[in-house]
Amino acid sequence: MSPQDWFRDPAARPDVVAGEAAAAHQAQLTKPPGALGRLEALAVRLAALQGRERPGVDRVWITVFAADHGVAAAGVSAFPQAVTAQMVANMAAGGAAIAVLARQLGARMELVNLGTVAPVAAHPDVRDAVLGPGTSDFTRAPALSDEQLARALNEGSAAVERAQAQGSELFIAGEMGIGNTTAATAVACALLDRAPAVLAGPGTGLDAAGVARKVEVIERGLVRHAGLLADPAGVLACVGGFEIAALAGAYIACSQRGLPALVDGFISTAAALAATRLCAGADEWLLFSHRSAEPGHAAMLEALGGVGLLDLGMRLGEGTGAAVAVPLLRLACALHDEMATFAEAGVAAGSG
Amino acid sequence: MSPQDWFRDPAARPDVVAGEAAAAHQAQLTKPPGALGRLEALAVRLAALQGRERPGVDRVWITVFAADHGVAAAGVSAFPQAVTAQMVANMAAGGAAIAVLARQLGARMELVNLGTVAPVAAHPDVRDAVLGPGTSDFTRAPALSDEQLARALNEGSAAVERAQAQGSELFIAGEMGIGNTTAATAVACALLDRAPAVLAGPGTGLDAAGVARKVEVIERGLVRHAGLLADPAGVLACVGGFEIAALAGAYIACSQRGLPALVDGFISTAAALAATRLCAGADEWLLFSHRSAEPGHAAMLEALGGVGLLDLGMRLGEGTGAAVAVPLLRLACALHDEMATFAEAGVAAGSG
Repeated sequence: MSPQDWFRDPAARPDVVAGEAAAAHQAQLTKPPGALGRLEALAVRLAALQGRERPGVDRVWITVFAADHGVAAAGVSAFPQAVTAQMVANMAAGGAAIAVLARQLGARMELVNLGTVAPVAAHPDVRDAVLGPGTSDFTRAPALSDEQLARALNEGSAAVERAQAQGSELFIAGEMGIGNTTAATAVACALLDRAPAVLAGPGTGLDAAGVARKVEVIERGLVRHAGLLADPAGVLACVGGFEIAALAGAYIACSQRGLPALVDGFISTAAALAATRLCAGADEWLLFSHRSAEPGHAAMLEALGGVGLLDLGMRLGEGTGAAVAVPLLRLACALHDEMATFAEAGVAAGSG
Repeated sequence: MSPQDWFRDPAARPDVVAGEAAAAHQAQLTKPPGALGRLEALAVRLAALQGRERPGVDRVWITVFAADHGVAAAGVSAFPQAVTAQMVANMAAGGAAIAVLARQLGARMELVNLGTVAPVAAHPDVRDAVLGPGTSDFTRAPALSDEQLARALNEGSAAVERAQAQGSELFIAGEMGIGNTTAATAVACALLDRAPAVLAGPGTGLDAAGVARKVEVIERGLVRHAGLLADPAGVLACVGGFEIAALAGAYIACSQRGLPALVDGFISTAAALAATRLCAGADEWLLFSHRSAEPGHAAMLEALGGVGLLDLGMRLGEGTGAAVAVPLLRLACALHDEMATFAEAGVAAGSG
């Protein structure tokens, strides 16, 4: 990895003038100041990110990145690895949670197969971007080679380019990969300098013995690669995953190209954390959708200075938490755009 | 008030069989058990309330009850009383927050004018149900006469009948009334036996001196009517409001007639509290949409055993918090209805 890599370039700057115009407009709407709570700040922030006083998120893009994890061989998931490819097929067929949500939201959804143990059936909505049959077991070798890392980051960026080419106003990255809470926890531990025992959780449903095994696996990985973890790109390569690196690449591309991204849960947030360490100012472009039930998520959100819009105890991934939060963004924009001002409505303003 | 009043009759019983069928269906969907968090329980609960394994909330009904408050003369609001009628006009014209949200949700919205100080202009969406030019100042007399209370409760019930006649699947009651956080706080203090200083807050934007004045006003009202506050109907009459009583009547009618109600914020929850004290089992039919920024709301929710779906710092009323939560209910129902089962999708179930 070279210091000249594209993913180390800084983020675009939000449009301060549009943000200020939106804030001034909010203050005129027929409600007590602040009465719409976080929906007000959300509309103002989207205005600054989209560079227009009246933002909108009608056109939502969802890319789900799928890959398998060598570390899954260590028994760190409640599900067999074959499920990754099965779930990609379920997403493509419209039966997975993220597919249902995308349909409900009228969002465009695509799937990117970065490499699974079991083969993924061909489907028009599944892009073939296989980097290998899953990552290497990070307790024995770096999960990704340098070349795989570069290609995974590029796949993330390419998805953002496709989204922008379609005029998308909001980017959601989802993920599918049996074992990926283990890799994401390892990434978070390396970036936050926290112990695995603090950040590791049950993922899809491990019992206490399973979580203890997961902690031990992550500890071994972090010890093995200790010399390479000072660079966030090294973290992604050594203990990350194809889809985690692609997510990080997508968030960086969103930030550099000026497209707001709505971050999902635990795995997505680990990738977002890596993105902000690689790309200065990337945090400005990341909105956080929810607080996952996975215990380590709160520590990552805190490090990112983010607060999820929702706290519903979700822990599914796929991009589902972000998708469920989309209506809040849409309603925030609609209120901002369609509410009458005090002057328009002939309503007396308050003294408060 | 007689013990034979309709609003003292018990609630309908949710359909346990439909709820159990929905829970069994949820367990088959292609996700780790519980991974959709509260959205799962929400779908199962709606199934029991609607009596069908696959619930839905496409058809949402919103009635906003508006009225003025005699106690506003004591200077307990940041806005002048004329704003109540002005905001009814703003709602009817489509410029108020609740009107924007109703439009976005495709919900049916009606306004019921129960009596304001300034006249409300005639409009096809505004029902004329004037009980007087606002309530009496509860520091000097009961806010409502017994006849006004009975009529206000009946207006709430009539709104639910209209909603059911249109096939509505979810009822939202909103309110508009300058001064009504003062009345709602008085109702909550009487029903929960808490001191006004504990439950009173800034409402639409009072400063500390304003809140202190509000506390003192509520204290005087509770002392004056102390002998009549053992009966929840007496509480509504002595320190409530036309719209607060109508909201309580609506929640009771929903509970008796078997229509789920999505409760909004501080004022709505005070009415919901009164409803559950008058109608045994009403709590089963009440879903709580959000936690208001008004500080006393948490105490009421706790007493009702409810947890809001959202916590966005909203404090506008009108039914807006409930409206913003509607997409969560809809997405919960869509996921419940449209996700593939493990068997359908050929996905291996986990060991977790």
